[in-house]
Amino acid sequence: MHKPTTPSQVERWGIYELSLEGPGDGNPFLDVQLSAHFTYNHRIVEIDGFYDGAGVYRVRFMPDTVGAWRYVTHSNRPEMDGQTGAFTCTEPGPGNHGPVRVHNTYHFGYADGTPYVPIGTTCYAWAHQGDKLEEQTLRTLKNAPFNKMRMCVFPKHYAYNQNEPVYYPFERDDGGRWDFSRFSPAFFQHFERRVGDLLGLGIEADLILFHPYDRWGFATMDAQTDDRYLRYVVARLAAHRNVWWSLANEYDLMEAKTMADWDRFFRIVQESDPYGHLRSIHNCRRFYDHSQPWVTHASIQNSDLSRVREWREAYRKPIVFDECCYEGDVEQTWGNISAREMVHRFWLGTAGGGYVGHGETYLHPEDILWWSKGGVLHGQSPERIAFLRQILDQGPPEGLDPVGRWGAGKEGATYLFYFGVHQPAEWTFDLPEGNQYQADVIDTWEMTVTPIEGVFTGRSKVALPGKPYLAVRLKPLA
Amino acid sequence: MHKPTTPSQVERWGIYELSLEGPGDGNPFLDVQLSAHFTYNHRIVEIDGFYDGAGVYRVRFMPDTVGAWRYVTHSNRPEMDGQTGAFTCTEPGPGNHGPVRVHNTYHFGYADGTPYVPIGTTCYAWAHQGDKLEEQTLRTLKNAPFNKMRMCVFPKHYAYNQNEPVYYPFERDDGGRWDFSRFSPAFFQHFERRVGDLLGLGIEADLILFHPYDRWGFATMDAQTDDRYLRYVVARLAAHRNVWWSLANEYDLMEAKTMADWDRFFRIVQESDPYGHLRSIHNCRRFYDHSQPWVTHASIQNSDLSRVREWREAYRKPIVFDECCYEGDVEQTWGNISAREMVHRFWLGTAGGGYVGHGETYLHPEDILWWSKGGVLHGQSPERIAFLRQILDQGPPEGLDPVGRWGAGKEGATYLFYFGVHQPAEWTFDLPEGNQYQADVIDTWEMTVTPIEGVFTGRSKVALPGKPYLAVRLKPLA
Repeated sequence: MHKPTTPSQVERWGIYELSLEGPGDGNPFLDVQLSAHFTYNHRIVEIDGFYDGAGVYRVRFMPDTVGAWRYVTHSNRPEMDGQTGAFTCTEPGPGNHGPVRVHNTYHFGYADGTPYVPIGTTCYAWAHQGDKLEEQTLRTLKNAPFNKMRMCVFPKHYAYNQNEPVYYPFERDDGGRWDFSRFSPAFFQHFERRVGDLLGLGIEADLILFHPYDRWGFATMDAQTDDRYLRYVVARLAAHRNVWWSLANEYDLMEAKTMADWDRFFRIVQESDPYGHLRSIHNCRRFYDHSQPWVTHASIQNSDLSRVREWREAYRKPIVFDECCYEGDVEQTWGNISAREMVHRFWLGTAGGGYVGHGETYLHPEDILWWSKGGVLHGQSPERIAFLRQILDQGPPEGLDPVGRWGAGKEGATYLFYFGVHQPAEWTFDLPEGNQYQADVIDTWEMTVTPIEGVFTGRSKVALPGKPYLAVRLKPLA
Repeated sequence: MHKPTTPSQVERWGIYELSLEGPGDGNPFLDVQLSAHFTYNHRIVEIDGFYDGAGVYRVRFMPDTVGAWRYVTHSNRPEMDGQTGAFTCTEPGPGNHGPVRVHNTYHFGYADGTPYVPIGTTCYAWAHQGDKLEEQTLRTLKNAPFNKMRMCVFPKHYAYNQNEPVYYPFERDDGGRWDFSRFSPAFFQHFERRVGDLLGLGIEADLILFHPYDRWGFATMDAQTDDRYLRYVVARLAAHRNVWWSLANEYDLMEAKTMADWDRFFRIVQESDPYGHLRSIHNCRRFYDHSQPWVTHASIQNSDLSRVREWREAYRKPIVFDECCYEGDVEQTWGNISAREMVHRFWLGTAGGGYVGHGETYLHPEDILWWSKGGVLHGQSPERIAFLRQILDQGPPEGLDPVGRWGAGKEGATYLFYFGVHQPAEWTFDLPEGNQYQADVIDTWEMTVTPIEGVFTGRSKVALPGKPYLAVRLKPLA
C-alpha cells in the first residue's frame, strides 16, 4: 500500500490534490472506482477521483471553508481504499475571490462577494494549437480586457480550422479507431494546464463541453460515452475555481443529440459537480429553455442586443450575449461586423442590464483567427471594451438593471444611459428627488469621460453634445 | 344662366377646371349638388364639383386619354345644370408622366410607364406656416433629392408646433366656434396651391387626411363631418396628378376613431376618387391591416428596416417606411438618429426591396424643424440620399426585389448588395452562369463609386475593402 504524498495546507478555493498509485492494467477508466470524502466538522463533501495514466489516480478538491479538513478515500481497489489524511485550509491569496456565482438575480459575483462583471472573449480552439501559439494567446490575454474565455474541450473542424490538434481526448485502438472507453491523460493534462493558465490571469474558463464542428466523431458519440466523458471532465476540472460549464456551442446544430440528451447532460454535470459551477448552453437559431432550473444564466447568440430586457423578464437570470457577431472581415455574416458596431453592441447590452462577449475574425494568411485559434488581436474594439470595463468597475457593485428605455442603474446609486445611434442634444433625466448627482458624458468610441457642469436632482434637463455613441453616467455625490 | 369660361384644351393628366356661378347664400356646402359627366367616345367619367366661396363652384377633371372630350353638368340648381362643352386633351408636356401607380407588385411607376422610386421626406405642417417660410421650404425642395412629401391637411399641435396656422379648414360661427358644415375656401385655395407647387417641382404630395396632433377639434369631429370633409378634399384635390391619400398619421393614436371608421374612410376615398390615387395609412404602434383591398401600399413606421422582406411577403404590396426615425438631436427618440444611421436605414430598406422616407429634427431657436415646418435642411443625410437616388435612377427599372440575405435585383439585370455594419473583405456572389457582370464598390457615406477590376460570371469571389456601410453593384455587360 502506498501512502499518498499530499500537502499539509491549501488556500481557500485552491486545489487540494490527492495522488494515489493503483492498477495500470486492464481498463482503469471502466474498472476502477475511486472517490474521497472530505470532512469539515460534521460536513462531508464527496469527490470523485479520476485515472491520470501510468498507474496514477487523482482526487481534486476545492475547499470553500477555512480551517481543518480531513479525508478518507474509497475505492474498489484495496490499495487505494481507506487512505486518510488531514490538511488546513488557509485564507485565500491575493486575487483569489473564489468561483463566480449568480448575484442579484441578473448579475454575477465571486464567492467572497466581490462583484464580477463578465467581459468575455472567444477562442474556441486555442488550447489545441500547440504551445507556441497558445503561449502567444496567453501573452495577448495578459494585456487584454477580457475576464472570461469561451473555449471548447474537443478540437474544432470548421472554416479556417483545418489543422489537426496536438492532442486528442481519446486513445486509439490497434486498428487506429478511437477507443472511446479510454481518455487520453496527455490531452487532459494539457487542457487543464491551459485552464490553470487562465486562472493565473484572472480569467474564467467557460468550457464548451460539446460542439458540432467535428470531423473526428466527438459530436456523435453514444450516450454511454457522452455521459462518461462529462463525469470525467467534471472530476478532472471542477476543482479549478474559474471553470464554467457551457453544455454546448450551437447545441441546436448537433443533429445526433435530442433535447432529452441535453436535459440529461445538464443533470449529470449538476450532480457530478460538488461546487455548483455556472451552467449554460449556447444556441444557433433556437434557444434551449433557459428557465430550466439547472441553467444558471442564459448564454445567447443573437445580434439584437436591445432584446436583453425581454429575456431578463423571460428567464429572471443573467443574460449573457456570448455571441453577438464578431469584429472582423470574413465573408460569414457572423464574423464581419465593424469595431464600432461591436463596441455599440457591448454598450447596448450593458445598458439593458445584460453582458456581452467579444470575438474577432479578421482574415489571416495562416488562418490564425482570434475567435478560434487565439494569437494576437488585430481589431479596434478591445481597447474600447477595456474602457467599458473601467467604467463598469467604477459602477454600482450591485450591477446595472434597466431604468426606462435607455438607462440602467439602481435607485440612489450610479445610473448609466447609452444612446447608441441616437444623438439627442438635450435629455431629461428623472433622478430621485433630494439626491444630488454629478453627470459625465462618455464617448464610447473616443474613450473620453467629460464632466457636465452642474449638480442635478429630480427631473433634470441636461444639454448633451448631440453626437452618436455617447453615454451619460450619473453618480450620486458622496 | 352663366356659361362657364373654360379652356379649349388641356394636357393629359393636367387639370381641366370648370368654373360656374351659383348661389352664395344659404349653406352651399350642404344645399347645392354639382357634378359633371366627362365623356370620351362611349366612356363617361363622373366628377363631383365643390363650392369655392363667393358664389363660385368648380369641377376639376384630370383626363387620362388624349383626344376629344365633352362634358355636361348636373346640379339641383338650374343655373348650374345641363351646361355642356368640349375640349381636346393633348399629349402631356415635359416632365408630366401622370399619376403614380403600383408597378410590379412591390414597386411604383408613373401612369406612362416611367419608373418612380419614392425618396420621401416629411414636413407635416409646412403648408400652414405662412408664405415666407413656405416659399423657403419650396426653394429648399428644389435642390433636395426628395420626390415625395408627407404633409397634413389639418394644422398640427405638438412639441415644437405651438404656433397657430394662417388658415383654418372651417369657418367659425358667430360664437367663435367651428361651423363644421362650412369649409373655408381660403384654407383650401392656399393648401391646393402648395400641392400645385410640389407638382411643379416633380414632388408627390402624400396628403395626410387625419392626425391626432390637435388642439382645435379636427381630430374629434363627428362621423358626418369626417365623411363630408373627405369627399370635399377629394373633390378639390384629386385632379392633381401628384396626390396620394394617407388616411392618417399614427391612426392608432386617434382615440375618437374606431377601426370601422378607418375602413369607412378608405371606402369613401376610394369611391370618391375617379383616378384611383394611391391609398395608405400610417401607424404608431399597431399596424392597420395593410392586406385590405383598398390599401395600395403599406406605409410603415418602424425602426427595424430589416423587416422589409417579412412585410413584402405578408402584404404583397410596396413597403414604404415613411417613418424610420428622423435625423436630428431632439430629446424624442424618434427624432435624434445620426445622419449615418439615417443613410444606413435608407440603404437597408432599399436593398431589402422596400422604400424609405426622410425627416429632420434638429433643435432650432424658433422651433423651425424641417420635419414639421420645413425651412432649410441642416443635416448630412440629404446629400447621401441624393447619391442613393442617383444610384437607383441607374438601377433596374423594374425595381429591386430581395436576392439572398443582402442583395436585391432581378435575374439578368443589375444587382445591389448592401452590407451595412458588416465589413467583409471578400464576398461570393452567385451570378447567373453565362452572363458577364462588372462590379462597383459603393461607399454610401463617402458617396463614391469605385469599379472593381475584372469581369464576373457564375459563382464569383470578389475582394472588398473591408469597411462598413459599403454596397456592391453588379451590372450586366451590354
